[in-house]
Amino acid sequence: MTGTLPPTLEPLAFLLGTWHGEGRGRYPTIEDFTYREEARFAWPGKPVVAYEQRTWVPLDGPPSHAEVGYLRPAPGGAELVLAHPSGIVEVSGGTITGTCLELVSLTVLSTPTAKSVTEVRRTYERRGDRLWYRLDMAAVGEPLLLHCEAELHPG
Amino acid sequence: MTGTLPPTLEPLAFLLGTWHGEGRGRYPTIEDFTYREEARFAWPGKPVVAYEQRTWVPLDGPPSHAEVGYLRPAPGGAELVLAHPSGIVEVSGGTITGTCLELVSLTVLSTPTAKSVTEVRRTYERRGDRLWYRLDMAAVGEPLLLHCEAELHPG
Repeated sequence: MTGTLPPTLEPLAFLLGTWHGEGRGRYPTIEDFTYREEARFAWPGKPVVAYEQRTWVPLDGPPSHAEVGYLRPAPGGAELVLAHPSGIVEVSGGTITGTCLELVSLTVLSTPTAKSVTEVRRTYERRGDRLWYRLDMAAVGEPLLLHCEAELHPG
Repeated sequence: MTGTLPPTLEPLAFLLGTWHGEGRGRYPTIEDFTYREEARFAWPGKPVVAYEQRTWVPLDGPPSHAEVGYLRPAPGGAELVLAHPSGIVEVSGGTITGTCLELVSLTVLSTPTAKSVTEVRRTYERRGDRLWYRLDMAAVGEPLLLHCEAELHPG
């Protein structure tokens, strides 16, 4: 989208762009894995940030995870609404400190055929020209634990 | 995505493609309106259908509504997980009869700053080369009522 970014989105501007890289995944119920990722944060012309992400496992393998949704500016930070092809939706709230966004799920829901996810925490931090993030998750009866971490580069 | 569609997605194949058209919107709390729409149902290489939709109001005006998410085949029909930039997520379940998909929300959630939506019903029906849909919604204290309807053409 061309034009001037709405002032309410300025605190989220550090996320904007298309990001690529490799990440490391783990969870007690699965083998450790590495993945290839593409993430895009874009301004769609409304006062929100559109977010879409895809991964491939192994690095040259087939599509694995994906997620799509929107970041909304909110008093003191931002809100996230997100849908996963695995049958999960997240509603999260978070704070922005400089170029660091920390989100904590308010509610996570699963469709009847999906695995149960009960909590998700996400941290996104701009470090120079890189975008680092980590995702912690409580799912399938396990407590909140580190699940994914990556440092992505632009382009 | 190239390749052969997974057999589990065949019942949803009538939706696949990019669709355009004009729709009619109404709700007791707002003025009737017409909108321009682009909707896309795509196979992303996993056994789901990726769905993204955008509208413009008026027809030559700025971006209005949008929604993104996934349809998942499920026993007897399909499931939908969806996120709206207005701060809403939907989890729905539905049935497929020929080329008609009827979805009823199981849960609709709003972020703290979003308007309250409590129920959504969606019907998508392929009619020859057109895709017709209607959306009924209970929101901001109103009962379940027709909100949007459109017949879209491919391309």
